[in-house]
Amino acid sequence: MSLSESCDLFAANDGIPELTIKNERLIETIHETADLFGAKYSWGPLATDTGVCRLALSDEDKGMRDWFVKEAEKAGCGIAIDDMGNIFAIYPGRKNGLPTAIGSHLDTQPTGGRYDGIYGVLSGLEVVRTLKDNDYVPEYPIAVVSWTNEEGARFPMSMMASTVWANPAKKDEIYNLTSVTDTKPVTVKHELERIGYLGPFKCSFEGMGLAAHFELHIEQGPILETEKKEIGRVQGIQALKWIEVSIKGKAQHTGTTPFASRSDALLAASKFMVKGNEIAALHDGLFSVGILEVLPGVVNVVPQEVKFVMDIRHHCDEELDDMYLETLKAFQEIAQLSGKKLCFEVKHLVNQKAVFFDEACMDCIKRSADQVVGIDQSIPIVSGAGHDSGLVAARCPTAMIFIPSRDGVSHNPEEYSTPQQVQNGFKVLLGAVLRYDKLRSK
Amino acid sequence: MSLSESCDLFAANDGIPELTIKNERLIETIHETADLFGAKYSWGPLATDTGVCRLALSDEDKGMRDWFVKEAEKAGCGIAIDDMGNIFAIYPGRKNGLPTAIGSHLDTQPTGGRYDGIYGVLSGLEVVRTLKDNDYVPEYPIAVVSWTNEEGARFPMSMMASTVWANPAKKDEIYNLTSVTDTKPVTVKHELERIGYLGPFKCSFEGMGLAAHFELHIEQGPILETEKKEIGRVQGIQALKWIEVSIKGKAQHTGTTPFASRSDALLAASKFMVKGNEIAALHDGLFSVGILEVLPGVVNVVPQEVKFVMDIRHHCDEELDDMYLETLKAFQEIAQLSGKKLCFEVKHLVNQKAVFFDEACMDCIKRSADQVVGIDQSIPIVSGAGHDSGLVAARCPTAMIFIPSRDGVSHNPEEYSTPQQVQNGFKVLLGAVLRYDKLRSK
Repeated sequence: MSLSESCDLFAANDGIPELTIKNERLIETIHETADLFGAKYSWGPLATDTGVCRLALSDEDKGMRDWFVKEAEKAGCGIAIDDMGNIFAIYPGRKNGLPTAIGSHLDTQPTGGRYDGIYGVLSGLEVVRTLKDNDYVPEYPIAVVSWTNEEGARFPMSMMASTVWANPAKKDEIYNLTSVTDTKPVTVKHELERIGYLGPFKCSFEGMGLAAHFELHIEQGPILETEKKEIGRVQGIQALKWIEVSIKGKAQHTGTTPFASRSDALLAASKFMVKGNEIAALHDGLFSVGILEVLPGVVNVVPQEVKFVMDIRHHCDEELDDMYLETLKAFQEIAQLSGKKLCFEVKHLVNQKAVFFDEACMDCIKRSADQVVGIDQSIPIVSGAGHDSGLVAARCPTAMIFIPSRDGVSHNPEEYSTPQQVQNGFKVLLGAVLRYDKLRSK
Repeated sequence: MSLSESCDLFAANDGIPELTIKNERLIETIHETADLFGAKYSWGPLATDTGVCRLALSDEDKGMRDWFVKEAEKAGCGIAIDDMGNIFAIYPGRKNGLPTAIGSHLDTQPTGGRYDGIYGVLSGLEVVRTLKDNDYVPEYPIAVVSWTNEEGARFPMSMMASTVWANPAKKDEIYNLTSVTDTKPVTVKHELERIGYLGPFKCSFEGMGLAAHFELHIEQGPILETEKKEIGRVQGIQALKWIEVSIKGKAQHTGTTPFASRSDALLAASKFMVKGNEIAALHDGLFSVGILEVLPGVVNVVPQEVKFVMDIRHHCDEELDDMYLETLKAFQEIAQLSGKKLCFEVKHLVNQKAVFFDEACMDCIKRSADQVVGIDQSIPIVSGAGHDSGLVAARCPTAMIFIPSRDGVSHNPEEYSTPQQVQNGFKVLLGAVLRYDKLRSK
C-alpha cells in the first residue's frame, strides 16, 4: 500500500506550535498491519472489509510486534521490553523524567476487528511519527506502550500484563496461565520466550514508571453514534461484578406434573432475569446474562438445574453494591415462591471497582477535543468495558478518548469507524498529550 | 429368586367366580426380569434399588422379549409377532373373536426405572398366569401385548410401533429411522432382523385387530400421591404441542450497551417463559420449557439468539388452541417492546390431539376399583404423558389404570411404587378385563 501524501495543519494552540499532519497515514497503517498480521473473515466488498484474528503471543502477534518495534525505531524511539512482553517505545523529550504514555494493545479476540486496541497503539505511533516529521521535541519523553494480552482470549485473563504492571506480585501466577485456544496448551511464559518478548526489565509501575497514560479507543457501544457526537471524553470505567447463579429445582415430567407440584429451575431463572433487569434499570445500572445452561436439557423434563452468570455494572461502587443486594433479595423472594425443592446459590467470580480518571488528563482531552471537533461535538462518557487504562489508573494519572463504533459493534469482524472518525480521535489524542506535556513543565 | 407361594382370594363379583391370586408373583417377576435384563444405577441399599436401561431392540430388549415369550407360552398363550416386533401373547377363550388386550411396553429410557411400561406388560402376564392357575376360560381370547419402542430413546420416535399399528402406512418411513444412541447408527428394520423380531404378520389394526385395549401404568406424576388415592381411572390423554421458538436479537457488549439500545434475545425469552406459564395457569393447562440454547454464549455478550422448545398441554383440544394463540399474541407484544432488532419465529414440531377413553372400558375399571380398593380410593385423572393406549384408542375401545408413583418420579432409576400399590393395580386390571370379557358376550 502506498502512503498518501495528503497533509493538513494542526493549528497552534495552548502553547503548541503549528504542526503538519498526514491525513491518511494512520488509517493506512491500520489496514496495512491488519492485512499483514491476521486479517480474517471478509464481510464486505473491499479488501479492508475483514476482521483480524491476532491472539496474544501467537505468531501473528509476534509479527505485529516486530513491525511495531521497527517502525517506532524509525520514528526515533528507543525500545524497552519488560518481562511480561509489554513494549515501551520511548520518544525522547527535552528533559529526562518519566514518559507521558499513550498505550493500548495489539492483540484481538478470535473473531476480532481492525480497531479494538490496535487503533490506540498505532495512534501512539502516529503521534511520534508526526513529532518526528515536524522535528518537534516535547518537554518530557513520550512513550507508546503496547500492553500484552488485553483481550484474555488465548490466555484467559483480560488486561493481563497491565494488571501485572500495576500489581507486580501477580507475575508468577500469571506466567503459569495456560492457553485455552491451543490443542496443546502452553503457558504465558513459554510463549513470551518462544516469540522473543520475555524482556529484561521487570514489569512494574516502579521499574518502568509512567508520568501519565492516555488511551484512544473505539467506544464499542452505541452512545456516541446515537447522540451524534464525535468524541467521548471518558470519565472512568464502570464497576463490575460477575456472579454465577446456580438454581436447583426438581426434574419432573412436563406432562404429568401440575404447576403446584413443580420446582421449575428455568422458570425461576426467567423470573430472576426479568427482575434483575428491572432493578438495574431503576438504579441506572446494567444487568446482563450471556451464558445459561439448562439440565438435564430434555424437551419433556422440567429443568432440574439452571446455571447462569450475571454481569452487573454501575459507574458507582456503592450503587452497584446496593443494586446487587436488592437483586439478591428479589431472587430470594422469587425462589421462595417457586416450589418446595427450589433453592439457589451464588458464587462471586469477578468484582472490579469503579475507576475514576484523572482531572488534569481529562482537562487536556477536553481542550483538545474543543479545538479539533468543536465544543458541542464531545461528551463525557463512562466506559462500560474494561481497558488497560483501568489498571494503569491505579498507578499514574490516566484518561481515555473514545470515537464512535458503527452500530456499537466490536469483538466482531464488522467493527468499524470511518477514516474521518479515526483521524479525529488521533488529533484529539495528539493535542491532549502535547498539552499534558506542556502542563508537566509548568 | 424363589417365587413366594402366599395367596389371596379375588372375591366373586359381577358374574366372575372367586379366583385364587398369588400375592407376590408379579412384584417378584418385575424384579427378576429387571435384574436379568438391564439393571443399572443403584440408588439404595437393596439389590432391587436400581433402575433399568433396556433400550428398544437392544440385546437387553431381546433377552426380555425371549423371556416373555417363553413365560407366556408356559401360561398357555399362543404367540404372534408382527413386522414391527410387537408381541401378541394370546390366551384362548371359549369363543373365537378379536382378543381383549392388555398392553404396554418392555423398553426403557437410558436412565429408566423398573416400572414404566414393564409393569403394564408383566401385569398382563400375571393376568393370564392367574387365569391358568384357576383353569378359568374367558369368553373371548385375552392378548398380552408388548409394543415396540414406546420410549423413543434409541430410535427417536415415541410410541413407535403402536403408531404403525394404528396407521400402517407409516411403516416404511419408520423402518428407516436410525438410532441416536449407537456410535454406529443402525435402522429400526436392521435391529428388528438382528434380534429376531421382524415377525411374519403385518403390523396393523386390521391384520391383528383388538376388541379392546387396557393399559396399567404408573402415574409418572404426583397427583395420586398428593390426593392420597390408590387408583387413577384415566379418562384420556392431554392434547400436546411442541413448538420451537427461535428468537433473534443482537450480540452486543454487556458493558457498553445501554438497555435502550439492546435487543436482548435471552431477556425476551425469559419474559416469554414467565408469560407462557401465566397464560397456561389461567387456562388450567401446562406450559414447560425443557431445552434452551443461548448464542453466542459469552459472559459479556448480550445474547444474539435464543432457541427453546415449548411444551404446552391441555385435556381439551380447543382450549389448547386458544391457549396457544393467546401465548403467541403475548410473545408478539413482548417482542415489539424488546428492541428494534428483536424478532422471533415458531416451528411446530409435534401436535397431538386429546384422546378420550372408552366409556365401557372405563366403567369396567370403575367397578373393579370400587371392589378392590373401595369406592373412595380411586379418582378420575387425565394422563399428562403419552402412552401406546393414546394411539390404540383410535382403533378400538381403550382405557388406562394408574397407580401412584413415589414423588411423581419417572424416567429415573428411583422410579418406585410399593408392592401393595403394584398388586392393587394388577387386581383392578384383572377385574376390569374379566368384566369387559363378560360384557362382550352379553
